[in-house]
Amino acid sequence: FYTEGQQCCGGVAAHKVIKCKAAVAWEPNKPLVIEEIEVAPPEANEIRIKIVATALCHTDLYHLLESMQPQGFPTVLGHEGAGIVESVGPGVSEYQQGDKVIPLFISQCRQCHFCKSPRSNQCVKAWAGIARHDAMAPPTSRFTCKGKELLQFVGTSTFSEYTVVNEMAVAKIDPMAPLDKVCLLGCGICTGYGAAVNTAKVEPGSTCAVFGLGAVGMAAVMGCKAAGAKRIIGIDINPEKFEKAKVFGATDFVNPKDHDKPISQVLIEMTKWGVDFSLECVGNVSVMRSALESCVQGYGVSVIVGWTDLRDIAIRPNQLISGRTWKGSTFGGFKGRDAVPQMVKVYMDKKLMLDEFITHHMTLDQINDAIELMKRTIIPMILLFLTTKYVKRCSIY
Amino acid sequence: FYTEGQQCCGGVAAHKVIKCKAAVAWEPNKPLVIEEIEVAPPEANEIRIKIVATALCHTDLYHLLESMQPQGFPTVLGHEGAGIVESVGPGVSEYQQGDKVIPLFISQCRQCHFCKSPRSNQCVKAWAGIARHDAMAPPTSRFTCKGKELLQFVGTSTFSEYTVVNEMAVAKIDPMAPLDKVCLLGCGICTGYGAAVNTAKVEPGSTCAVFGLGAVGMAAVMGCKAAGAKRIIGIDINPEKFEKAKVFGATDFVNPKDHDKPISQVLIEMTKWGVDFSLECVGNVSVMRSALESCVQGYGVSVIVGWTDLRDIAIRPNQLISGRTWKGSTFGGFKGRDAVPQMVKVYMDKKLMLDEFITHHMTLDQINDAIELMKRTIIPMILLFLTTKYVKRCSIY
Repeated sequence: FYTEGQQCCGGVAAHKVIKCKAAVAWEPNKPLVIEEIEVAPPEANEIRIKIVATALCHTDLYHLLESMQPQGFPTVLGHEGAGIVESVGPGVSEYQQGDKVIPLFISQCRQCHFCKSPRSNQCVKAWAGIARHDAMAPPTSRFTCKGKELLQFVGTSTFSEYTVVNEMAVAKIDPMAPLDKVCLLGCGICTGYGAAVNTAKVEPGSTCAVFGLGAVGMAAVMGCKAAGAKRIIGIDINPEKFEKAKVFGATDFVNPKDHDKPISQVLIEMTKWGVDFSLECVGNVSVMRSALESCVQGYGVSVIVGWTDLRDIAIRPNQLISGRTWKGSTFGGFKGRDAVPQMVKVYMDKKLMLDEFITHHMTLDQINDAIELMKRTIIPMILLFLTTKYVKRCSIY
Repeated sequence: FYTEGQQCCGGVAAHKVIKCKAAVAWEPNKPLVIEEIEVAPPEANEIRIKIVATALCHTDLYHLLESMQPQGFPTVLGHEGAGIVESVGPGVSEYQQGDKVIPLFISQCRQCHFCKSPRSNQCVKAWAGIARHDAMAPPTSRFTCKGKELLQFVGTSTFSEYTVVNEMAVAKIDPMAPLDKVCLLGCGICTGYGAAVNTAKVEPGSTCAVFGLGAVGMAAVMGCKAAGAKRIIGIDINPEKFEKAKVFGATDFVNPKDHDKPISQVLIEMTKWGVDFSLECVGNVSVMRSALESCVQGYGVSVIVGWTDLRDIAIRPNQLISGRTWKGSTFGGFKGRDAVPQMVKVYMDKKLMLDEFITHHMTLDQINDAIELMKRTIIPMILLFLTTKYVKRCSIY
């Protein structure tokens, strides 16, 4: 139902700079500014993408409002988007103009030690390379504005009508896929779902606890259910989320505000021994500790899914010595170029919910309203907007 | 070559109190006192054991000198011993007088949720039940001295000529096994070896790092080699241990005192990406952190083997979010009643080294000298003594 081919600039534009609209984060902790920016043509192995839909993820806000590292600005945020290939640079053969794609914040070069290992999705060419970790952006950018270079947040920068991404960080998806839904697979849904199925390796018949029922948490609930968990306990201080969590498979609910004792104790009492698997989907070091302590001694597995890296997590050694396992994953452990097209297929086959996550639609011009909406909620949520004619705003709450 | 049957008191004594020698820890941080104690007859499902050989483990010293919890005293320490069944209480059918046995500090009741699970050795009836964790002793004791009840440290109390243990915490072993060697399987060797093969699940061709080359660390090295590791890096601030570690399979050595930079950085430089598996065998929270940070991003596994529980361990969340796994185990994940007899067999088949760990022999009367010897070393070591006619003293250094 899109007419993206007509909206794209066609082959003629491939070698030209595109001027388009983007939300620029000039400095930490300030509203984004809608600017006209210049997007350079794709260079070798690069792809210029017209972004059709993107969601707002809490990690965008983390960069803007929490870590606030000056060397990470000015930048264009956004990493949960989908779009159409506008043009490709020299050497690109796997992608062509008109392809529907999802930009990836973790690349899959298919050449490195990690890409070749079945155990990891931590491509060494990913943006998160140690050297650029502070700026959360690759060393080169194709964006300028008012004579200044703008960083490309995690390499994707989907809060722009056009972006340029290396082909190793682009997943080509089903041409029939609705971009305003599958954009959610660019981060949150894969992150939560994959943490359950790939990282925790939730087992059939098991009991799981999901801490934080934002989009990532809801996706983790969905992953636990897909893996065959018998009991899925959702934990959130906002009980309004519990009804929604039922849609994704949650069976029990705990609101920490209803209890005087540590939530780990509440969960151990509910389950006799503690849960088999717990997933922390908040990004809070105290909750990470609580999630581990809620696991059954002997073989419980706790997975850190929420993102934060400003403070240490801590635990008594005996929590691990007595047999628990503490893990984490990025992007749910998925190798993006291979897995995202498969996840799109699972959605198209109606075996994965995406539409149910969407509750608001907004335009790019409304990005600061979207940020305010997300700031007012306790737990990360999703907002989606489109740069095509009709615009949408979505979140799970 | 023992004549234990003759040395044992025979069936007549089964219902009598035995008076014998034991090293009593009357209070924290004081020398042990060799006392004559009374050892009551075994009650239902209990076994009275004549201890023939025992080693001194750092965890005995941890209780005496580090945690020093007053409610854990007076007590009889010792948990790495071997002996002969002197008599059995009502209901015991699996064991009889004259059997060679190793007392277990983690029971295996074979009935509980954890015993029935293949994933855990954390028997709920183990001494480490939450209620008694502070005292590190079961609620009942068969020891008295000068009119006072003595606690039985971790249920075993092998620093006594006789002890009484519930049958669920006793492993029956090959009648041909030399007790002055296989006693080491009662704690340290199984703990280190099992942490490599059961908990870390070290893979063939992998690179491993073992932090701390005490007895547990040496056993971990041996476990890594048995699992097929290609490269085993031993880390210790005492380089005199490196030659010995070669015997067990270590291929590379790092002395942190030779480096100005963090040891994790040294290991990452040595291995390009970090090690596949690391094992912390010191019991130091800083070393635990370092061991995790030394692992390869994406899929590295770090196992906490050394015991301490006085302070938190801490780490940046991204260490886990980027794909590392933090685990721990007690007694190497072995279910003692099943596994210890098997490990004895592996030793008898000459596929496991034990003799090589032994370097000193001492008598029970020399227990305080043994403790002083261990305190002077940086890393835990093993000391062994016998209560039979000839006495030995051993440690790896």
